Amino acid sequence: MAQGLSKILNPDELSIIVNTADDFEYLGLYISPDIDTVCYTLAGMANPATGWGIKNDTFFTFDAIKKLSGPDWFLLGDIDLATHFERTRLLKAGKSLTEVTRLLNAKFSIKHHVLPMSNQRVSTLVQTKEYGVLSFQEYFVKHKFQPIVQSFKFEGMETAKPTKDVVEALSNSDSIIICPSNPFVSIDPIISLNGLREIIQEKFVICISPIVGGKAVKGPLDKMFEDLGIKSSANSVVEHYNGLIDFIFIDNIDKEEYKISDRSSIIIQSTDILIPDLPSRVRLAKEIINIIKKKI
Amino acid sequence: MAQGLSKILNPDELSIIVNTADDFEYLGLYISPDIDTVCYTLAGMANPATGWGIKNDTFFTFDAIKKLSGPDWFLLGDIDLATHFERTRLLKAGKSLTEVTRLLNAKFSIKHHVLPMSNQRVSTLVQTKEYGVLSFQEYFVKHKFQPIVQSFKFEGMETAKPTKDVVEALSNSDSIIICPSNPFVSIDPIISLNGLREIIQEKFVICISPIVGGKAVKGPLDKMFEDLGIKSSANSVVEHYNGLIDFIFIDNIDKEEYKISDRSSIIIQSTDILIPDLPSRVRLAKEIINIIKKKI
Repeated sequence: MAQGLSKILNPDELSIIVNTADDFEYLGLYISPDIDTVCYTLAGMANPATGWGIKNDTFFTFDAIKKLSGPDWFLLGDIDLATHFERTRLLKAGKSLTEVTRLLNAKFSIKHHVLPMSNQRVSTLVQTKEYGVLSFQEYFVKHKFQPIVQSFKFEGMETAKPTKDVVEALSNSDSIIICPSNPFVSIDPIISLNGLREIIQEKFVICISPIVGGKAVKGPLDKMFEDLGIKSSANSVVEHYNGLIDFIFIDNIDKEEYKISDRSSIIIQSTDILIPDLPSRVRLAKEIINIIKKKI
Repeated sequence: MAQGLSKILNPDELSIIVNTADDFEYLGLYISPDIDTVCYTLAGMANPATGWGIKNDTFFTFDAIKKLSGPDWFLLGDIDLATHFERTRLLKAGKSLTEVTRLLNAKFSIKHHVLPMSNQRVSTLVQTKEYGVLSFQEYFVKHKFQPIVQSFKFEGMETAKPTKDVVEALSNSDSIIICPSNPFVSIDPIISLNGLREIIQEKFVICISPIVGGKAVKGPLDKMFEDLGIKSSANSVVEHYNGLIDFIFIDNIDKEEYKISDRSSIIIQSTDILIPDLPSRVRLAKEIINIIKKKI
């Protein structure tokens, strides 16, 4: 979605705020999975087959780590490793995650602002039925999101602050787009940061449903809803955001359901939500921008 | 040399004691260059063209680090990186360098004992004319051993202890072979460890000259001798060890010089010192073992 928006908006018209509560340390490296996925996608380097990492990357190091019986539950490609080495080195040298992201993005020729939500560590913990509390990557990668989810917790949220850049970008924005992301683990960490919900509340907020026909467009959101005893639907997403959003794009296949059931005050519009390639991403981005232009 | 010896001696007949004063941290990884060179050579994995790293290794990570303007003065291959990741991980988990080396060597199917000289950090510092004090790898790799050497210092030597395995291997040995190594930076750190010189002194010590026709068989030894105002010769090596060695193999091309000049009590024998391939390494190893069998 961010890639589609970046193709039709100038760098001064778009700031992309990214969850960092999935970040973790692995083999001494500071890994920022969501920032990497966003940046690699914007740079045209992302691997579309996996949804993570760099396309055509090799895995010589991790193949060798596996032979040494080292930890290989989280795979990092050889070129991808360079990003983590360099991020870790720059962080240790005292730069903030915001600065490091800007420096790396300059190398990747990314023109749009990609803003980590915070320069402090926040860590998503997943309370599961089978294993108790798991770090997000243990839940997501190591256990392939199979454990039953009971609740989420954002460790460090009490003391973490949103960055100055994030507060300014949100405050100065005409409208805020909540991409078709996981509300529990990708969006909640951002809007839970001190003061951000209040800023977002004042804006025209447009959401793209991450649920199409009951299924998540990507990842385990539908299973999370089910684990929590909530119907996996665009309506549940709207309810989850609890008054924060003004407009939602749902998929055409969900149109009939919402004609009948929706009683909320938010505007619902149906379109084709699935955006597997760049043309469809640009098409949806244009639809979103058209709505924003009409509403603000 | 160690590879040649390993081909004709059983694991219980040979322990290889390795300098760790070149060890350093780089990009958060614990690097043991001498241990790696010995182990990769014993495993038949070493890159003969470079003298470091793994043959046919790729450099995708470091090519990418270079593109990100990260530090690339010390190159690590992709497969080589796995060794450093795993060593670092195991050290952080509380294992000693001796244990980690044993675990990794089991993976490399190395049967002979490779013993790091110490489990504590000792760091070779090189006092240079141009740059003042440099760490060994800065001197050796970053500055390509071009600075003029004034002296060496082994930081941490006062508190470091040789490992129990090293003390036992030396104490239980019939004889000790000082391989054609750099006395200043590869052998001195070992014999400077508390108590080791005294143990070695009691044994039959056979040295293979690291100088042939005034030139180092490998590395900067000849230049170091010149920088320090000492003639680069096998005789200077003998004098450097100051009564420690009983027997030295010199190269055939140095034979005439020693017929005239040598007045020491040590036994000198000439042979072909240069051992670029496995057959020549085995041949020299056999010559050494024959001498030891005659002398002990």
